[in-house]
Amino acid sequence: MDCLFCKIAAKEIPSEVVYEDEKIMAFLDIFPTSFGHTLVIPKQHYENVLDADSDVFGPILSVVQKIGRAQVDSLGVKGFNVIVNNGKDAGQVIPHLHIHIIPRREGDGFTHWHGPKYESDAQMKEYAEKIRQQIH
Amino acid sequence: MDCLFCKIAAKEIPSEVVYEDEKIMAFLDIFPTSFGHTLVIPKQHYENVLDADSDVFGPILSVVQKIGRAQVDSLGVKGFNVIVNNGKDAGQVIPHLHIHIIPRREGDGFTHWHGPKYESDAQMKEYAEKIRQQIH
Repeated sequence: MDCLFCKIAAKEIPSEVVYEDEKIMAFLDIFPTSFGHTLVIPKQHYENVLDADSDVFGPILSVVQKIGRAQVDSLGVKGFNVIVNNGKDAGQVIPHLHIHIIPRREGDGFTHWHGPKYESDAQMKEYAEKIRQQIH
Repeated sequence: MDCLFCKIAAKEIPSEVVYEDEKIMAFLDIFPTSFGHTLVIPKQHYENVLDADSDVFGPILSVVQKIGRAQVDSLGVKGFNVIVNNGKDAGQVIPHLHIHIIPRREGDGFTHWHGPKYESDAQMKEYAEKIRQQIH
């Protein structure tokens, strides 16, 4: 399969690996949001959270926790964001499930985007009801 | 404990619940990034990813997957972001572990922030080495 992250997992393409086990690999993002920005991937190819086998979720998040702790312990930061973009419309560039772990410094300029508020409780309830009906 | 999300989990404060089981609850964010923005929390209090018991990671991400699928199936979106802010410096406002699931539309204006690039491979390697040494 012609997938950049499958090639990184197979060591066909080099990367700065910070963690690796049988199923999971973590390496630095070469276009960092901040220095130390790390990506965690399952070695097996999944496109994103939607098609991933749930067996991999626990192990992946345990590695995310390890990396977050290591960023805090090594980089002098007190916080980090964990971000998974699912689908092109959500900014996913490489279609192989990857979890961003982004070390954060106070006042580093990375601010969160806010959209419009709900116009009423009824409007909010309507959205909740739509989602509830599709939970399987 | 005087924690907003503990009170929501205990139903002492009402919320638009979209999913609930013994350990986990999902409800709409009242200050949405986009309409349908959902939060998933463990009912047990953890501050963030760093102090969470890893047993809860698999179940939480399975619920995140359910909600993401339901957003795609119900709201006419093709993608969503999964975001966990850990620590004040990372924009965490409520100190009870919560996972944002944000439905995304093409061209909705939510763009990703990019910081400076590494000046050299050596600088990148240096960051990787720092993190590697603190992985436990």
